[in-house]
Amino acid sequence: MSLILMKRIAQEAKDASARLSCLSADDRNAAIRGMAKQIASDADAILTANRLDMRDAERAGLNAAMLGRLRLDEKKIEAMVRGLETIAKLPDPLGRELEKIVRPNGLHIKKISVPLGVLLIIYESRPNVTADCAGLCVKSGNAVILRGGREAARSNAAIHDSIATALKKRGIAPAAVSFVESTDRKDVEHLLALSGEIDVVIPRGGPSLMKTVSAKSKIPVLKHLDGICHTFVDRDADLAMAVRICENAKAQNPGVCNAMETLLVDKPVAAKFLPFLAQRMKARGVELRGCAETQKILKGIKAASEKDWSTEYLDLILSVRVVNGVEAAVEHIRKYGSKHSDAIVSENASTRTRFSKAVDSACVFENCSTRFNDGGEFGMGAEMGISTDKLHARGPVGLRELTTYQYIVSGHGQIRE
Amino acid sequence: MSLILMKRIAQEAKDASARLSCLSADDRNAAIRGMAKQIASDADAILTANRLDMRDAERAGLNAAMLGRLRLDEKKIEAMVRGLETIAKLPDPLGRELEKIVRPNGLHIKKISVPLGVLLIIYESRPNVTADCAGLCVKSGNAVILRGGREAARSNAAIHDSIATALKKRGIAPAAVSFVESTDRKDVEHLLALSGEIDVVIPRGGPSLMKTVSAKSKIPVLKHLDGICHTFVDRDADLAMAVRICENAKAQNPGVCNAMETLLVDKPVAAKFLPFLAQRMKARGVELRGCAETQKILKGIKAASEKDWSTEYLDLILSVRVVNGVEAAVEHIRKYGSKHSDAIVSENASTRTRFSKAVDSACVFENCSTRFNDGGEFGMGAEMGISTDKLHARGPVGLRELTTYQYIVSGHGQIRE
Repeated sequence: MSLILMKRIAQEAKDASARLSCLSADDRNAAIRGMAKQIASDADAILTANRLDMRDAERAGLNAAMLGRLRLDEKKIEAMVRGLETIAKLPDPLGRELEKIVRPNGLHIKKISVPLGVLLIIYESRPNVTADCAGLCVKSGNAVILRGGREAARSNAAIHDSIATALKKRGIAPAAVSFVESTDRKDVEHLLALSGEIDVVIPRGGPSLMKTVSAKSKIPVLKHLDGICHTFVDRDADLAMAVRICENAKAQNPGVCNAMETLLVDKPVAAKFLPFLAQRMKARGVELRGCAETQKILKGIKAASEKDWSTEYLDLILSVRVVNGVEAAVEHIRKYGSKHSDAIVSENASTRTRFSKAVDSACVFENCSTRFNDGGEFGMGAEMGISTDKLHARGPVGLRELTTYQYIVSGHGQIRE
Repeated sequence: MSLILMKRIAQEAKDASARLSCLSADDRNAAIRGMAKQIASDADAILTANRLDMRDAERAGLNAAMLGRLRLDEKKIEAMVRGLETIAKLPDPLGRELEKIVRPNGLHIKKISVPLGVLLIIYESRPNVTADCAGLCVKSGNAVILRGGREAARSNAAIHDSIATALKKRGIAPAAVSFVESTDRKDVEHLLALSGEIDVVIPRGGPSLMKTVSAKSKIPVLKHLDGICHTFVDRDADLAMAVRICENAKAQNPGVCNAMETLLVDKPVAAKFLPFLAQRMKARGVELRGCAETQKILKGIKAASEKDWSTEYLDLILSVRVVNGVEAAVEHIRKYGSKHSDAIVSENASTRTRFSKAVDSACVFENCSTRFNDGGEFGMGAEMGISTDKLHARGPVGLRELTTYQYIVSGHGQIRE
């Protein structure tokens, strides 16, 4: 029964995607502005729905961080509305001519950016993701099936109601942005099997969601996994700059994927740099865990275990290791890193190049903080997440990364000999 | 035991990939030319191994087509050698600056093409694929694990011996091009689970191989599925051109994925066009299967069943359907097609554009044959296959499609506020 329902939702999304992909940029932008307007005028209904979700969440004993993510207020609704208006203003990611080839036989080959088709987005507690994803998908010409978390069910449904109303007003099939009301896990499994209807799955949430989706999906997945991010302070580093960068990468917002988790210090500067660093980290409340060499310099700190090197703390904890030279730093990162964001601080250009070439990460930062791995900081305007995949998209996933390409080959009767 | 062996092969490939990605283009090209030279000088050993494979294959009763693909002779070895020399001459796919952004805070962001890492290629009977894949992978800086078919085991091993010798002579770890001697299917399953070591799987073979690999793989798969390719002859078509294109798309090489399987004819020109077409198809030995409308015009031809519309014949059979207008043609293709290669023949530019925008295929052909969906015909020089995926690569997979990108962000001490 629920399989049939999921299949129908997916089929309707597929049909809607065919029409959506043919809309002009003006029509898509008008639809997004309409969504913003409708959400603003439906604010009361959305806040009422959210209060019910909050009541249940409090009763269920959700922790403060989760409640904070779930809670909506007028300011957050305003931010949602502004977010949609910003998306409407961004350049059109569709129809870009990525390449043009003229062949000796007179064929003209154009490589054009086109929508991916139908996206399935599975996300967790924050209800503003509903509006954000709807905006990004309509902008990029993709139909989307949204499947939010159980605890935000009423808030998401209310926001989706506004979106559906806005689409209908513009004559767009509401199936272009579908919402799965069911919070049954079985239904997610049903959806993940519909590779004939759904083109790409994007999970947005914690590691356990990523793992479940990757394991069960018959559809290609665009995912972001852990960010085990490193900063390597080279022997030729400007040490004052290095301390500033490390402090920022670790402590400015420790709970996010592009925060630094491990510091690697080059042996010749370790004795000078580490006490300097420890002082600043202490002031920021950061616990240090060090290798044997680090412990010799910073007396009394805890030992880092093998497990520390591959842990994403997402907390005010930093593991520290002394390594001898850039090659040893690269070796550590290739062994323990997650190919997300890794930085080098060095005044030596050739060392920086050696590091960047050999470190196999989506983003390498030279003399700046790993915290810059972010769609907004890259000037993309809006992002869906940070991909740690190698196929398709790496790093920030913005509007362009929600497109694929199509070859249009034009001739005048050419046949193959 | 075999899991441990597979894991070791994959780990060694991963280590080799780190070094391979740092080699200059000259070094990679020299290695490929060395492989060509070594294969040429080892021709006798390779032919001897192939004779043993052929003997067993004949005894096992393989059909003529399979034997043809398996058989090597001096000419085929020469073609392999020339193929490698051609790859060495192609432009370097690595280190291309795909984008450059300067941010208001002074950060310089470069998007650079880099290798994917470690590829696992699982292929079927043709032993020349061994040399071809090795060349494409070394050129694109990727380490590769080759797993060929059981029937070509000795031929593949002999070709791989030459490759390994050539790599060693240039000081490159032979693990950069690894070869799995085992033909045990369990070992493939072991490899498909090693997502920590292997970055991408590329199956090259028939539909059953594709399905098995997609179902079992924990690693992202770059695959080519069926080519259910259509040609739509519009009411505004040049009918003489249309016949020529259809004949080529169907009959020039019917056993390949970009051959036409279904012809869609616009109602107003059906009565005029179909008899003309039938005559030419008869001359080429093509069996026609038609919808009711087609059968009214072409008396005595077989009826096309629902199943025909979604069948990749790979044979001299063509299903024919009369549709009313471009929208109906698009609807048929979206329902039954495989998003591979679809063509329109029309002198009407706006009809062509409507078709191309709405047909969700990797390659759309306007007034030319679907048979042009091919890396060589696109000027790529060499190809790994034709992707029907939407993530990462669509259409021909050449050297560029064997790369991903990395962001290099350069600063002078910037931190995030």
